[in-house]
Amino acid sequence: MSEKKFARETFASTSKIILPNDTNTLGNLMGGQLLNWMDINAAISAQRHCRRVVVTAAVNNVSFNRPVKLGDILTIESKVSRAFSSSMEVFLDVFTENHRTGKRTKCNEAIYSFVAVDQVGQPINVPEMIPETDLEKERFAGALRRRQLSLILSGRMDPKDATELKALFA
Amino acid sequence: MSEKKFARETFASTSKIILPNDTNTLGNLMGGQLLNWMDINAAISAQRHCRRVVVTAAVNNVSFNRPVKLGDILTIESKVSRAFSSSMEVFLDVFTENHRTGKRTKCNEAIYSFVAVDQVGQPINVPEMIPETDLEKERFAGALRRRQLSLILSGRMDPKDATELKALFA
Amino acid sequence: MSEKKFARETFASTSKIILPNDTNTLGNLMGGQLLNWMDINAAISAQRHCRRVVVTAAVNNVSFNRPVKLGDILTIESKVSRAFSSSMEVFLDVFTENHRTGKRTKCNEAIYSFVAVDQVGQPINVPEMIPETDLEKERFAGALRRRQLSLILSGRMDPKDATELKALFA
Amino acid sequence: MSEKKFARETFASTSKIILPNDTNTLGNLMGGQLLNWMDINAAISAQRHCRRVVVTAAVNNVSFNRPVKLGDILTIESKVSRAFSSSMEVFLDVFTENHRTGKRTKCNEAIYSFVAVDQVGQPINVPEMIPETDLEKERFAGALRRRQLSLILSGRMDPKDATELKALFA
Amino acid sequence: MSEKKFARETFASTSKIILPNDTNTLGNLMGGQLLNWMDINAAISAQRHCRRVVVTAAVNNVSFNRPVKLGDILTIESKVSRAFSSSMEVFLDVFTENHRTGKRTKCNEAIYSFVAVDQVGQPINVPEMIPETDLEKERFAGALRRRQLSLILSGRMDPKDATELKALFA
Amino acid sequence: MSEKKFARETFASTSKIILPNDTNTLGNLMGGQLLNWMDINAAISAQRHCRRVVVTAAVNNVSFNRPVKLGDILTIESKVSRAFSSSMEVFLDVFTENHRTGKRTKCNEAIYSFVAVDQVGQPINVPEMIPETDLEKERFAGALRRRQLSLILSGRMDPKDATELKALFA
Repeated sequence: MSEKKFARETFASTSKIILPNDTNTLGNLMGGQLLNWMDINAAISAQRHCRRVVVTAAVNNVSFNRPVKLGDILTIESKVSRAFSSSMEVFLDVFTENHRTGKRTKCNEAIYSFVAVDQVGQPINVPEMIPETDLEKERFAGALRRRQLSLILSGRMDPKDATELKALFA
Repeated sequence: MSEKKFARETFASTSKIILPNDTNTLGNLMGGQLLNWMDINAAISAQRHCRRVVVTAAVNNVSFNRPVKLGDILTIESKVSRAFSSSMEVFLDVFTENHRTGKRTKCNEAIYSFVAVDQVGQPINVPEMIPETDLEKERFAGALRRRQLSLILSGRMDPKDATELKALFA
Repeated sequence: MSEKKFARETFASTSKIILPNDTNTLGNLMGGQLLNWMDINAAISAQRHCRRVVVTAAVNNVSFNRPVKLGDILTIESKVSRAFSSSMEVFLDVFTENHRTGKRTKCNEAIYSFVAVDQVGQPINVPEMIPETDLEKERFAGALRRRQLSLILSGRMDPKDATELKALFA
Repeated sequence: MSEKKFARETFASTSKIILPNDTNTLGNLMGGQLLNWMDINAAISAQRHCRRVVVTAAVNNVSFNRPVKLGDILTIESKVSRAFSSSMEVFLDVFTENHRTGKRTKCNEAIYSFVAVDQVGQPINVPEMIPETDLEKERFAGALRRRQLSLILSGRMDPKDATELKALFA
Repeated sequence: MSEKKFARETFASTSKIILPNDTNTLGNLMGGQLLNWMDINAAISAQRHCRRVVVTAAVNNVSFNRPVKLGDILTIESKVSRAFSSSMEVFLDVFTENHRTGKRTKCNEAIYSFVAVDQVGQPINVPEMIPETDLEKERFAGALRRRQLSLILSGRMDPKDATELKALFA
Repeated sequence: MSEKKFARETFASTSKIILPNDTNTLGNLMGGQLLNWMDINAAISAQRHCRRVVVTAAVNNVSFNRPVKLGDILTIESKVSRAFSSSMEVFLDVFTENHRTGKRTKCNEAIYSFVAVDQVGQPINVPEMIPETDLEKERFAGALRRRQLSLILSGRMDPKDATELKALFA
């Protein structure tokens, strides 16, 4: 598939008010609920990239840095950071907004991977992803390191071939 | 805190039948739904380890290897794999069971980290974790490598100090 | 309250994939589900305008023009169209996106009203709303006609005083 | 279709206890949740009128007059108020019941419109509606004014032809 | 408490359309979902009897006689059948309605028991229940036999004292 | 069907943390929610026994002995207690776990019956059930008494033929 897409074309965003329904006994948003919401938002980015059915393949690097409170406005934003044959890495940023001052604070970051599939669930190729901004380029480069690391940890790549990662430990 | 716990004391398990409610347009279990269920199950393991309120701190190494279908019986199992001061790494294995033959197949693996907190949400120390079986020992050892990797990637550890990881690339 | 806000500062948006869970026996998004989602999105716009707790006061002019199908990507967008002492009119536009071509089509329009309340639920004044674009100005003007009509229909305004509406029938 | 139905044959009612799950941060029933419940109840009335699949076409005149509190018993009642070729206007009344005294208070009113459709989603004619009580007759008459107003506002009727509405402003 | 209530004063009813969300892989309403809905409806009857907070104490004699299908209109009806010091037996009848012919068929019957409690959860006395119709009287009488049986089976009554039940086996 | 199964082969278990979402206005787990969860868990036991689609046929002897509180860990355990041609009786035990001490307390017991059905919903025979432990044998024997009682109460058995029950009242 020779088509190309820009990262900005895959932007997806969702805003929510945290309701009692979403919180634990401390009145904070539960991690599992946020993981579920991020999955849907990231899937929309992946689907906007390839215009096919997409299925979640992996989740990594999700860190919950600060509690999100009952009543907060939460905004989830995502873009495809890089495409590899049939898979896409999606980078998510999550923000809360103080409901009195409107001050926006980043509270989470996550990386989801999706695979594009055809009607019978077989992987199919996706367009190439073109980063434009500095942040898009940085995440595009990082995606390759993360992929190498993942291949090494699962025993599908020899660490000696992971040039970028080796440099870290040299 | 001088108390110690065995991995087996933190075992938690949940079985579910996949219902229409849980599936995407292909009739497969949605990734985000499973991430949410795993979060609850892993939190029970962490809570059984420390007997305190626990909050999700990080999610890593979640891989979705095979689709889970409408009507399948899904079983999620988790144990704490290692404890570090106030945090606990929980390792999850997910299985599906063919509803006609009863054949059980592993479909997912994931690693969640939790932090134990007091009434005002401040981190507090948790008991040490003692692995017993070979698998528990292997995951206990791996937990240290994963922690070093995470500290390096977030810039909080110098790669030169990560002895175990360096060996991989030597 | 002498503070003023621009319409654009109240923009809120949410994207969703329509799942089996959201559909009726024809495989179309149920009206009540969409009414619920629009309420949350509109409340975020109202809250961004006044930075207070807001409660739904009225719903009008919701028309469902075309069915939204299972698997479609739905995007809800809203902005405050006009503020009146303690109440805010919020105008919503809803779009579907063909998941193969990406073509975006407007499928719904709705008008929700919210009241800003204090801790004990009493109404409090909100900032004035300043429209900038042509569409914002048109909706700002329409909000007054809709308010007069609502006051007349509920018997709280004499039709003779509704100058703008009278002109329609002259 | 020459069949006729009485308004009372389309009566539908639902009672609910307001649970934490249904409330906002003030402990009041959320507007969007009620809109969703009313949609289902009104759809049952419309379906009892025409005995076909019905889809929500429009929502109007929903006013939230008093907060509904956690623990209250809520009762939603609806009847078809008038039928027009393939569409039906449904009028809803919503009551809360003080859980100690049993005193019943009206808290909401709403008007939903539905269209009857065949298997492929095409509109089909519905029976005529016969009002019997004074209230049914009043709402039957009002339905025509509301329909004219809606046609004028959407530019599909010339205000000069809306005899009943013109009288209001004469 | 010398107050008395009639069975008809405790009548509660709820209508629902069976949606995909509520069904199993055969397209039938799931038993557990119906058990949950019946619990809420029965609790409203019990609360209308005693005007206090009520908690579910026991469930018996629930039989699922015929499958309820996707798209069916389901109506749950309940009345308190008898009161005993602090507890109330509630009898439920569940009907489906063919959505084309309107024909109503009974599909379920169930008996739930509730206890009235004060603010700290302690049982408190409830009014006496007065049956009026033949069916109400029959269920009132049956409630005593069911209570004796339950006391015997849990070892809290000597079978010799259960006069009515003994007669069955004489 | 000559196949036989042991009770232990049908064991199913689920652990949950009670969240705000699951509680009533007293902060206790709602009975209907637990009935729903028990139905799913019991269905997994029945399905593990017969490896066919199962549908809930009856619910009996559910007693709620002690309130389950927000934040508690709840564990539901079930096994098939006896099989009769196409039906299976499933016995459930429910435990709460004090989240500080880990002390486990039994809070509920319930008996659900399921019928195995083929693709068109017709009952089909299930394997025989072999009890092994004392508790399994006691529940196996009790299942016959409960079945006789149920047949008598529904008028499908003459009390004189219920040998075991008659002995109780002799």
